[in-house]
Amino acid sequence: MEDAMTRQIKLGAFLPGGGQHIASWRHPDQPLDGAVNLKFHIELAKAAERGLFDAYFLADGLAVAFGGGVEGGNAKVAGFEPVTLFSALAPFTEHLGYIATASTTYEEPYSVARKFASLDLISDGRAGWNVVTTATEAAAKNFNLDQQLPHAARYRRAAEHVEVVKKLWESFEDDAFIRDRASGVYFDVDKVHRTDHRGEHFKVEGPLNVPRSPQGHPVIVQAGQSEDGRGLAASTAEVIFTAHQKLHTAQEFYRDIKSRARAIGRNPSHILVMPGVSPFVGCTEEEAREKYDRLTSLIIEEDGLALINALSGGELDLAGADLDGPLPPAPPTEGMKSRQELIRRIADENNFSIRQLYQWIASARGHFTVVGSAVQIADTLQEWFENEAADGFNILPPWLPTGLTDFVELVVPELQRRGLFRTAYEGKTLRENLGLPFPQTRWVSDFNEAAE
Amino acid sequence: MEDAMTRQIKLGAFLPGGGQHIASWRHPDQPLDGAVNLKFHIELAKAAERGLFDAYFLADGLAVAFGGGVEGGNAKVAGFEPVTLFSALAPFTEHLGYIATASTTYEEPYSVARKFASLDLISDGRAGWNVVTTATEAAAKNFNLDQQLPHAARYRRAAEHVEVVKKLWESFEDDAFIRDRASGVYFDVDKVHRTDHRGEHFKVEGPLNVPRSPQGHPVIVQAGQSEDGRGLAASTAEVIFTAHQKLHTAQEFYRDIKSRARAIGRNPSHILVMPGVSPFVGCTEEEAREKYDRLTSLIIEEDGLALINALSGGELDLAGADLDGPLPPAPPTEGMKSRQELIRRIADENNFSIRQLYQWIASARGHFTVVGSAVQIADTLQEWFENEAADGFNILPPWLPTGLTDFVELVVPELQRRGLFRTAYEGKTLRENLGLPFPQTRWVSDFNEAAE
Repeated sequence: MEDAMTRQIKLGAFLPGGGQHIASWRHPDQPLDGAVNLKFHIELAKAAERGLFDAYFLADGLAVAFGGGVEGGNAKVAGFEPVTLFSALAPFTEHLGYIATASTTYEEPYSVARKFASLDLISDGRAGWNVVTTATEAAAKNFNLDQQLPHAARYRRAAEHVEVVKKLWESFEDDAFIRDRASGVYFDVDKVHRTDHRGEHFKVEGPLNVPRSPQGHPVIVQAGQSEDGRGLAASTAEVIFTAHQKLHTAQEFYRDIKSRARAIGRNPSHILVMPGVSPFVGCTEEEAREKYDRLTSLIIEEDGLALINALSGGELDLAGADLDGPLPPAPPTEGMKSRQELIRRIADENNFSIRQLYQWIASARGHFTVVGSAVQIADTLQEWFENEAADGFNILPPWLPTGLTDFVELVVPELQRRGLFRTAYEGKTLRENLGLPFPQTRWVSDFNEAAE
Repeated sequence: MEDAMTRQIKLGAFLPGGGQHIASWRHPDQPLDGAVNLKFHIELAKAAERGLFDAYFLADGLAVAFGGGVEGGNAKVAGFEPVTLFSALAPFTEHLGYIATASTTYEEPYSVARKFASLDLISDGRAGWNVVTTATEAAAKNFNLDQQLPHAARYRRAAEHVEVVKKLWESFEDDAFIRDRASGVYFDVDKVHRTDHRGEHFKVEGPLNVPRSPQGHPVIVQAGQSEDGRGLAASTAEVIFTAHQKLHTAQEFYRDIKSRARAIGRNPSHILVMPGVSPFVGCTEEEAREKYDRLTSLIIEEDGLALINALSGGELDLAGADLDGPLPPAPPTEGMKSRQELIRRIADENNFSIRQLYQWIASARGHFTVVGSAVQIADTLQEWFENEAADGFNILPPWLPTGLTDFVELVVPELQRRGLFRTAYEGKTLRENLGLPFPQTRWVSDFNEAAE
């Protein structure tokens, strides 16, 4: 096990050009064109780096995200593609990592390996790949399919896809480049390797035409919660994003992932579990509450109902329902039962009216909302961090930039006072800052992951 | 026809982190790690913008380019992926365009539309897409194939691919975003459009999840020389890169493209033909010649032979041949006859020995090499520009950065003195600088391309 004295919280920041709260774009702090404003994204990256965050994180979808904004109230309906955006941001920071999402279902391994390797070079070793299988029908219809592949098929393809990408990232050994003007030898031909992969889903000869970066290759990130997702994450992920409302479910997930990793011979401290947290921070609890209430007051009724509808898989008909009454009974459904059940459980457990329900889920869309002073929020993070629920957190600011800068200016110093967070970056690369090992290529003869 | 008084030369710069000359990396001016050095690329972009170039251009291949360096002497064997690289460079310039290459054979239309639309937003309307079908077996083997599709099949797919990408770029009308905090309406749902494409190769529902840029959508660029390639270029390209050694073949190509465009109702002045030119510029002709000879002296014999071998399709066995003797007879071949014939014609026409042949092709690999004073080079460019051979030129500096900065400091002022080149950028977007029309979406009812 790692030395408990040196273990510190890792922090990601989820900054998609607008806050996590559904009404964030109506808040006067947030630029109206945030989703397509490069200067704003540069400002966010610099703020995250000032706060010594490990990484800037972006989710991704391969279709227009109408959900939660069917009446035109969705500020995230369209925007930048993450890997190009991060390539533009990386030169404006020196230490911040950049974790972008890309799909194993709709992109080829050579293309994925290549764009992330390029981002990794552009950022001098600060890239991460969040591996997703993309679970929407809308994406399938943008990529020549009438409907998406079944869940298990997507995960089987994902496992092989990640394997191929990692092989491609070992095409050039770290010392392959000689660059000797006198002899005219630029690279050592014996240190360039074909991939020669032939599997169930992919045939890829290689080598990749991008060399390795100072951190070897991008950090592998995942967020799968299902049985298939956990299996893939335990075997390949180095960082895992996850969503939990309660300490005990976060602990269950944390222990499960670490034990799966241990079972297949991986060092569990090389898989960092980072739940999402959406913080409303004030100098006092009352001030934090005011910030929360202000955003709540900005929710458009129709957007709130559309959000319930989207999160419950489109099966609940709320037209004409009394918003201050309870959620109506669900019709029989063949749709996404687990999502609908989650929404209903939240309503029942809290005795929420329809309005209270959408106000609650509007804040963090399933992630953990914390409202309080810096001390209160640090208390919660510390409790999760010290009780096998988290190695760090993926911070989802409710609105931007203030939701982020509040955290940087108030919570980060409190965590530092407690010795729970760095006061300076430890290294230059994302791996060094996350405390993850350098991935030797399979061509290095004495490599043995078990010995790490 | 356009007013002849205002017609000026357009300039692209081909700057792949190393010069066009095969030995450029051995020149002491050029950084040894140029291919993976971001700061060097930023310096190149700034130099091109100082020279008021229209665009920075990058070719692309979807496999390691061993050709011309089988013995490890190829400095371009691996490097950045172009669209990520350009995303990183764009914020460091204000006017320079960025034309990246992407393949219609190995990438899906949704992915291509998306990454170029994102680069177009990042650069505030300065992106261009060089459409290629990717003609190498090595690329096919990186994308699940044992061998590549036939030429005609690739071009049929390309035509539909470009059509889908252009439809996707019209998903959001230019005024789709309302962003009204008071009413809570972010976008006009009536100004977002599905693509609903169902064709021979692609089914794409859309819409694209990236809005349009200040120039509408990226400039479409092509470089096809074959019958299929010319047909596709005439129907869809706005800029055409081409390779010619002689004025008369450039004229034949130029007139053919313009007449094809006219025949299908396009305004021929909206298709810019830009031959490649690799210039060695000196204050005097003698100084230019010295620069040329210096690079020639840096060619490694094996790299020269490998280059002949690569350009002749790998069919010529030169092992043990007398380098100061003639090219040996070719064996019967099923390979790329046109390439082999081109190499042989160059050798025959110039009465070249093997050594002279590789020295000659090492300089610009099939492009037009000009060696002389600024006045001499301007004379040549002017002759081509004024005699229906070129609307502009794609400058391929033999080595970097000096091959570029020589051109910027010596040739650009000479072209300006003659009124042949701008003294300031005309606009903010790539289209504005190239004099290309803004592409209205098909949703604008009064749009009529013929009336432009």
